[in-house]
Amino acid sequence: MPKIVDHDQRRTEIVHALWEVISERGIEGVTFQAVARSAGFSVGRVQHYFASKDALVRAGCRELIDASAAVHAERTSRSQSPWEALAQLLMQPIPRSEELRLGAAVWYAYMARGVVDPAIGEIAREATHRGLEEASALLRRAGADESAAPRLMGLSAGLAQQVLLRAVQAEEALGLVREEIAALREG
Amino acid sequence: MPKIVDHDQRRTEIVHALWEVISERGIEGVTFQAVARSAGFSVGRVQHYFASKDALVRAGCRELIDASAAVHAERTSRSQSPWEALAQLLMQPIPRSEELRLGAAVWYAYMARGVVDPAIGEIAREATHRGLEEASALLRRAGADESAAPRLMGLSAGLAQQVLLRAVQAEEALGLVREEIAALREG
Repeated sequence: MPKIVDHDQRRTEIVHALWEVISERGIEGVTFQAVARSAGFSVGRVQHYFASKDALVRAGCRELIDASAAVHAERTSRSQSPWEALAQLLMQPIPRSEELRLGAAVWYAYMARGVVDPAIGEIAREATHRGLEEASALLRRAGADESAAPRLMGLSAGLAQQVLLRAVQAEEALGLVREEIAALREG
Repeated sequence: MPKIVDHDQRRTEIVHALWEVISERGIEGVTFQAVARSAGFSVGRVQHYFASKDALVRAGCRELIDASAAVHAERTSRSQSPWEALAQLLMQPIPRSEELRLGAAVWYAYMARGVVDPAIGEIAREATHRGLEEASALLRRAGADESAAPRLMGLSAGLAQQVLLRAVQAEEALGLVREEIAALREG
């Protein structure tokens, strides 16, 4: 009997291996060899799922956005208040622990790559717009001024950069987000 | 008579060519060939000044920080008020025009690279700390609460990212910085 191959599972494993490589070496460190080694697959098997390095890198970006949206949706459904959901949205890019650094570093690498790579830029721009709309919607639901959204999302992105560079402590950055939300709630 | 070669001038030309390459292709697009072509020099001449690609990339990071500090010092000396100087500091990473995008994109590429490259990370961290100290000092001089510095510098970095991704307009981002400073001045 032939072995049943779960293609979705394999594809997911390759994308996770890609993220590992990006978090360690940046997008410029991505090669089929490095991803195959990290996944424990042959280069040929990786190429069976992704025809080119660029296709793999772009697929990884879309998957990261979907994964991040799923985490956010799950957290948001659990938290009743729009303020709590807004806090989650703003804190998501800031890595709270070493484990969460991987996802945050990969996300940040994609954002930076988007500045010079038009295809990644389009995905990053879409994600940024979706984040801004989500923040506006939550502010509206909370009865607050939704024009605060670009400032809040900007602050979140910049604090994430500082924490990833280890220039600012995660706890300090998360505290600043909480203060910002507390000030909006009062005002 | 031998031709007099201005080595500092040549070195500067190579670094400017490096920045051009980074702004167009990211740090992963840097090769001796690409930099030589952009500078109009031979590869050998570039290698005479920089022994390795990494040495060139690192030198470009330090030069960018020095150039940015010089611009800031010059602008600050012209502006009398600490508030005005603070506005300049926060607006500097946000590209106001297409021409200014080059410097901002290169700066941002270095920050992102710093997350995965320890040598660049150290330089980026130092620059971030210096920026935070500068912002604290200006707030102190203005008689305001200096604890606002991490929030302001975070906001500036995040807005720069959004403008570089063309997800937010430069004018909107600069307006947010001005509003933030106006609110601090009043409060």
